[in-house]
Amino acid sequence: MNIRLHNARILTMEKDSPLFTGEVWVCGEKIAYVGAKKENVSGVQGKTASDIKWDKEIDCHGNLLMPGFKNAHTHSAMTFLRSYADDLPLQEWLNEKVFPAEAHLTEEDIYELTKLAVLEYLTSGVTGIFDMYINPDAVGRACEEMGMRCVLVSGLNNFTSSVKQTQEEYKKWNSKNGLVSYRLGFHAEYTCSHEILRELAEVANRLKAPVYAHMNETVKEVADCKERYGAEPIKFLDSLGLFEYGGGGFHCVHVTEEEIEILKKRKMYVVTNPASNLKLASGIAPISRFAREDIPVAIGTDGPASNNCLDMFREMYLVSALAKLRESDASCMDAAEVLRMATVNGAKAMGLTDADVLKEGKLADIILIDLNQPNMQPIHNIPKNLVYSGSKQNVIMTMINGQILYQEGAFFVGQSAVDIYEGANRIVKRMLLQ
Amino acid sequence: MNIRLHNARILTMEKDSPLFTGEVWVCGEKIAYVGAKKENVSGVQGKTASDIKWDKEIDCHGNLLMPGFKNAHTHSAMTFLRSYADDLPLQEWLNEKVFPAEAHLTEEDIYELTKLAVLEYLTSGVTGIFDMYINPDAVGRACEEMGMRCVLVSGLNNFTSSVKQTQEEYKKWNSKNGLVSYRLGFHAEYTCSHEILRELAEVANRLKAPVYAHMNETVKEVADCKERYGAEPIKFLDSLGLFEYGGGGFHCVHVTEEEIEILKKRKMYVVTNPASNLKLASGIAPISRFAREDIPVAIGTDGPASNNCLDMFREMYLVSALAKLRESDASCMDAAEVLRMATVNGAKAMGLTDADVLKEGKLADIILIDLNQPNMQPIHNIPKNLVYSGSKQNVIMTMINGQILYQEGAFFVGQSAVDIYEGANRIVKRMLLQ
Repeated sequence: MNIRLHNARILTMEKDSPLFTGEVWVCGEKIAYVGAKKENVSGVQGKTASDIKWDKEIDCHGNLLMPGFKNAHTHSAMTFLRSYADDLPLQEWLNEKVFPAEAHLTEEDIYELTKLAVLEYLTSGVTGIFDMYINPDAVGRACEEMGMRCVLVSGLNNFTSSVKQTQEEYKKWNSKNGLVSYRLGFHAEYTCSHEILRELAEVANRLKAPVYAHMNETVKEVADCKERYGAEPIKFLDSLGLFEYGGGGFHCVHVTEEEIEILKKRKMYVVTNPASNLKLASGIAPISRFAREDIPVAIGTDGPASNNCLDMFREMYLVSALAKLRESDASCMDAAEVLRMATVNGAKAMGLTDADVLKEGKLADIILIDLNQPNMQPIHNIPKNLVYSGSKQNVIMTMINGQILYQEGAFFVGQSAVDIYEGANRIVKRMLLQ
Repeated sequence: MNIRLHNARILTMEKDSPLFTGEVWVCGEKIAYVGAKKENVSGVQGKTASDIKWDKEIDCHGNLLMPGFKNAHTHSAMTFLRSYADDLPLQEWLNEKVFPAEAHLTEEDIYELTKLAVLEYLTSGVTGIFDMYINPDAVGRACEEMGMRCVLVSGLNNFTSSVKQTQEEYKKWNSKNGLVSYRLGFHAEYTCSHEILRELAEVANRLKAPVYAHMNETVKEVADCKERYGAEPIKFLDSLGLFEYGGGGFHCVHVTEEEIEILKKRKMYVVTNPASNLKLASGIAPISRFAREDIPVAIGTDGPASNNCLDMFREMYLVSALAKLRESDASCMDAAEVLRMATVNGAKAMGLTDADVLKEGKLADIILIDLNQPNMQPIHNIPKNLVYSGSKQNVIMTMINGQILYQEGAFFVGQSAVDIYEGANRIVKRMLLQ
């Protein structure tokens, strides 16, 4: 498909690139041109707009084209727990609500429940997810079928997975060269034995691969790890050689000075999940500190059980607003920086280096944002409007890999939304009867 | 107009009323019937649905009808400062950005800028606002013309208003018996002389009227008041006899035990503004404490300059999420309670006792919420879905006083949205050139 998106404001998210008015050409999976209107001058490969046979020409009416958001930490299939496991502290929530419910999930359930999450991502302008869950194959299959870009990350733990399984999944998904890829990871220090972690470190070093996990989410987790191993999670995990090739920590709410040095030294990413940290009363991560130390921060919604929605606008807003509260400084963490976290940093954290900005040759993961809505007016400063006032309501179109999957409230994912809702409700009813 | 809304899930927000499936009949400005489907049995005044000549019959497709949200604290016309005055502490923000910009506003500007806010309220399911601003007449006029229910509250202060003007406005707007009414108030202790406050107290006692103002928003405000008068704001203001007939405090982030007793004794409302308190790094109000003390809490967005959006879904979410953080208790402040704050408590705080719940004889201020969206699925618990996952995107229809003002993305307010956007942008351009 050749798609021309014209008459648009464009935020490429390339460093120091100003907002301008122009057009974006999409040919197949990739961006063929980003720039001023090109009717009469030589365009891509010497072509002008009128030389190309367009399958679609979309007049953007001055609305905003930008790279899609990257949801850099989620557990998509947990949609079944939305508004079910609420108002509980993390450990009780995990042990008494989440784990028992998850024990009833089949692979097919995970596949169906992931689809519900994908619909929500599309409404929120999310074009890439970094997903950790019990059965990565089911998640990957749902994403492939719907057209969602997904980086799976192993949720290795003592109970539902093994290092062997992780290696097999790594090989399987990374040999496909498609919408879905795979990164090494584990659930968390507190769900993995010392032995499993050492084994994973060996694999990571052999594959020269980065490693990701939940880290330093709650005060209790940090205290327990310290009691167990005499060191806080990031420090302990690093001592096993897990981060020789980098990686990232989900949450990182409670970190020591020494651990900040480790994150820097290992060039690791922090993926912050502010809504989840509020819901479970875990605290506020020191985001402005990370930023000052040049530790790259990406943003994730976490799973729907701990959020409850999958809305990158809410997360962006919270990253900025909670930093202001934490530092008692209304001037900290401005919108442009947060927008970078939600797009470019997210892509880099997940290894999606071709889906970070709007530029010729990059993957066509693009969203169109409606500026003709009251919450986007007046137009003083578009990045601030997006981060401080933006909402799902403003997402007109979500394109992944050159395919329009969501446009003006309608989904184009090969199955009706109603079918997907019914599937999810059926699973929930069955599980609650068990 | 007679409008029949049928095939709906209904949350009346009456105390202990469960959610049920049925219909709502609207005749003129009021609700004529709320209950089960009534085709063949005697309905309102002995009538059945087929006896009434309906101007509109709307099939709600199982979506949710509920009372509209009440935005119990706002400064609507400040839309012109959205994304302009950001990332500054409150005093600097007020003195260096807001006050100088406001000095250039004409009455006509305020009228135009209010209209932009009204559009945004409608997209967020807001059917009543409690508005304080420099020129209440201009705000009232915009709301009357567009069909927005509005309670004006005097922003009396040393510079732009007087007790005489407040009394005139009180008389003018309360004699109309229309969409717009008026309550006594003043901006804040720190912008009013001792004398003005004493005068206002006399008026309040003569009129037997409640009084509202910004109170105890920041640590600095409290400290300054204590230095000036030897007491914190609520304590000092109460000592002047301002709250003999109740009233309410906007913000109330930093209050003493003694002030909590005053709020209880005077049966005052607290109107919380969590997004504004984050943006200006003012802190987190002790909402769960207020709730424990049976001090009724309502919710406001505050003005768009200090928020930046006018989105009651964001506020509801924040009320719950920030309470969990403040108390380090993931179980506190559940969704049903927050939903009550955003509807019933808001109506009561503003004196809109006929616009609080869905019930025969009440004003028809009703919203229709789309449950057929991924963020509302599965349907475990609708109040939790609304508060924890809800978004403007879910508002299908906003009805005020029996009139549909917003439906499926379109506005019916007597003027096109584009005209209103252009008006606001024109004002902003002119002001930035000054």
